[in-house]
Amino acid sequence: MSKRIQQAMADLVLANHILSNEGVLDAFGHVSVRNPDNPDHFFLSRSLSPQWVQEQDIMEFDFDGDEVSATGFSPYKERILHAKIYAARPDVQAVCHHHAASLIPFSTTGVEVRPICHIGGMFYEGVPVYDDYDVSDGMLIVNPREGERIARTLGNKRGMLLRGHGAIVVGEDIRRTVMASIYLAKNAEIQYRALQLGTPRYLSYEEGRAAAETMFSENPLERAWTYWRQRAWAARGEADSSRVPV
Amino acid sequence: MSKRIQQAMADLVLANHILSNEGVLDAFGHVSVRNPDNPDHFFLSRSLSPQWVQEQDIMEFDFDGDEVSATGFSPYKERILHAKIYAARPDVQAVCHHHAASLIPFSTTGVEVRPICHIGGMFYEGVPVYDDYDVSDGMLIVNPREGERIARTLGNKRGMLLRGHGAIVVGEDIRRTVMASIYLAKNAEIQYRALQLGTPRYLSYEEGRAAAETMFSENPLERAWTYWRQRAWAARGEADSSRVPV
Amino acid sequence: MSKRIQQAMADLVLANHILSNEGVLDAFGHVSVRNPDNPDHFFLSRSLSPQWVQEQDIMEFDFDGDEVSATGFSPYKERILHAKIYAARPDVQAVCHHHAASLIPFSTTGVEVRPICHIGGMFYEGVPVYDDYDVSDGMLIVNPREGERIARTLGNKRGMLLRGHGAIVVGEDIRRTVMASIYLAKNAEIQYRALQLGTPRYLSYEEGRAAAETMFSENPLERAWTYWRQRAWAARGEADSSRVPV
Amino acid sequence: MSKRIQQAMADLVLANHILSNEGVLDAFGHVSVRNPDNPDHFFLSRSLSPQWVQEQDIMEFDFDGDEVSATGFSPYKERILHAKIYAARPDVQAVCHHHAASLIPFSTTGVEVRPICHIGGMFYEGVPVYDDYDVSDGMLIVNPREGERIARTLGNKRGMLLRGHGAIVVGEDIRRTVMASIYLAKNAEIQYRALQLGTPRYLSYEEGRAAAETMFSENPLERAWTYWRQRAWAARGEADSSRVPV
Repeated sequence: MSKRIQQAMADLVLANHILSNEGVLDAFGHVSVRNPDNPDHFFLSRSLSPQWVQEQDIMEFDFDGDEVSATGFSPYKERILHAKIYAARPDVQAVCHHHAASLIPFSTTGVEVRPICHIGGMFYEGVPVYDDYDVSDGMLIVNPREGERIARTLGNKRGMLLRGHGAIVVGEDIRRTVMASIYLAKNAEIQYRALQLGTPRYLSYEEGRAAAETMFSENPLERAWTYWRQRAWAARGEADSSRVPV
Repeated sequence: MSKRIQQAMADLVLANHILSNEGVLDAFGHVSVRNPDNPDHFFLSRSLSPQWVQEQDIMEFDFDGDEVSATGFSPYKERILHAKIYAARPDVQAVCHHHAASLIPFSTTGVEVRPICHIGGMFYEGVPVYDDYDVSDGMLIVNPREGERIARTLGNKRGMLLRGHGAIVVGEDIRRTVMASIYLAKNAEIQYRALQLGTPRYLSYEEGRAAAETMFSENPLERAWTYWRQRAWAARGEADSSRVPV
Repeated sequence: MSKRIQQAMADLVLANHILSNEGVLDAFGHVSVRNPDNPDHFFLSRSLSPQWVQEQDIMEFDFDGDEVSATGFSPYKERILHAKIYAARPDVQAVCHHHAASLIPFSTTGVEVRPICHIGGMFYEGVPVYDDYDVSDGMLIVNPREGERIARTLGNKRGMLLRGHGAIVVGEDIRRTVMASIYLAKNAEIQYRALQLGTPRYLSYEEGRAAAETMFSENPLERAWTYWRQRAWAARGEADSSRVPV
Repeated sequence: MSKRIQQAMADLVLANHILSNEGVLDAFGHVSVRNPDNPDHFFLSRSLSPQWVQEQDIMEFDFDGDEVSATGFSPYKERILHAKIYAARPDVQAVCHHHAASLIPFSTTGVEVRPICHIGGMFYEGVPVYDDYDVSDGMLIVNPREGERIARTLGNKRGMLLRGHGAIVVGEDIRRTVMASIYLAKNAEIQYRALQLGTPRYLSYEEGRAAAETMFSENPLERAWTYWRQRAWAARGEADSSRVPV
């Protein structure tokens, strides 16, 4: 295993734990990373609640969603969603699919999720909504055609909603994908409240773009990642949350 | 005790702990299971807050709500509600009665609880509301006639609300009943927010049916059950929530 | 110290811990009990956040709010509120004053808190709102005339709100006062949501009265008290919340 | 180091931990204190999530935001905001900048945050909203001119909002600044709900002024500070939250 793969694996395990601990993932939902040594493959845990994912649970898949490793584990049924996004978006290195409760009301009402504060700025290009299900599949994304439709709806955006189901967030690496996943849910929470109060003034395209650049720059990204990591570790009894992390 | 009864007992104890830990039950509410060896009887804890229920607390009742075991424990007053549902619904193997806060606003306003996301799809046949109380009983279901009215209101549905009081969820086994109890409350939470945002697009009958089939299939059911179980055990100091369960 | 006083003291300490742990009290708020051996006096902690109150912190006061014990401790400034209610209401044996966040919006908008579910039924006689402050006292109830006005506003009711400040709940003993304090806040939470959904059907006077009788009967009262007690103890590391309490 | 500086340092560290533990700060946000021995300088942590700040992380700055200590640490980019407020407001001894979620909806909708309960009374002079960003800076306050505009918007007030970003709270010492930061967020939470219920009656100017005087008097201030301190320490495993603090 190359050093880059080792790092990707470690980050992927941690991403699973962070997203669980911050309430973005629960029993369900999953996060994957492209194989840094082979862009035609990606890594994703076997079918398991994210908070228990460890390195030995990680499988490798191709763009048909077929396993190319030889674990024999039972995979997530929705892996095709990851596969088709990696196929369509060479710029994307990580994909998260989740069901954060604050986003679903937007997905069903035609009210667009829009950046309302600087942490949501990274979605300045919009958040499309998918509503083109194969009804018989119970709103799961399990066949290649549906995966391709998902990827087409996502287009070149950073995130999208699935009507009555959840969200997909993608990014240029795992850390930015984790941050964007957490902040999309938080932005929706704040937007919901603002809409109850009146007519919000959203971030302009330019404000959003600048805010995204800021949040995704090394210092805030590293600070947030460390913060979430220590919280996840502390919740697992693997760190003392009161001490400065080193 | 047959092996099937042993399993039912163990599942019932765990269902009590899971539903408490997930906030569906608190000091009050109860969950029961039909006797797998004698369909005319069911098991239900003595009068006790669910998070402390252990096997030795479980009593056995008939469809009149009379104890057929010989514990001499003080039973839940509302056991008649379970009794009359088991009598009316041979397909039902488990019953949960709870007071989840997200559901009560729907029960008092004439706004129907409807599937708004895939986890709520299992209620695609509708959630009737009971409002036919014997006023003098303080909204508790404690007499046989009221129990029968409850069962009639439930009809062939998976769940129902009791105006200003709570909900009843039934199922083909304990695990599906636990899942449906948790997801009915969660669906209501999301539906509430969607209704504040605009006019939700609910799941169609067919979408709901397919989503129910998916969620109730072995893999998701087992995954959710394990997830909730580990969380309940961890909260009780009986498991290490960071380790992959075996 | 008589046995009855010992019991009152122990219950008062526990009431402080329960109400803190359930989020009804925080740094502020207080709960008192009438002296069971001398109805002209009442017990109330020295000025201290309720979660730390122990027996040695309890002072004794008369209806002028003057200390009749000899602790020399610094008392709560708002003790006059307790004093004047005990003076006006011989039926009241315990008083709680708190600032639960779910109640304050009702206190400032003219929307009456009304029983919307069976646990709120105990307020079937209504919840008056006090808005007759001595402006210079910063909305604290610290002078005898204001204490008397409070008692007059309460009348023969079980609870009242103070505009932009909080609530007062009284009862025939400590346990019922604790239960009513927790349930008034919970009822308001549910009522708030119901009002966002539509026009709630509240409990009728008769339904409320019957529900109050039920909730205040020995079995539910004891069950809830034990439940809250074990939770409070567990939060303090003084009990194992997973074991059946004895 | 003078005794006054030692005290300021210790209070600053504790303020970081309290504000994190109460949910006002998270990975981001910061709190500073003026140098009590040199009013032209102020103390602020190096760039670090507040819950890990210790004395050795604290840097000293002048009103240009330049470090006057010699730590060589990487500072918070937004320190200029603190610098320009200290320059403009000689009465201010502490500054907190945070992103509490309850405040942001107000910042984007033109709905003014107003005192709705006694703990919010301290903002009786109003809470202005800043919306005059250098768009290219991604809504961060990082250049001196923007810092000056912020200080001008704040004027002689105790707090302000930044549109789509967060809040700034100032005070005559660290403890009052911590209390005001927590209570501004809490007031907004309650105001939000009141606005959903109807037309709130806010505190009058005089009521607010009197309530501020009360909350900021020694007894409540000390009580709240001790309460938050013990909670923060308990969350860090540094105190037993069930024991009376000494």
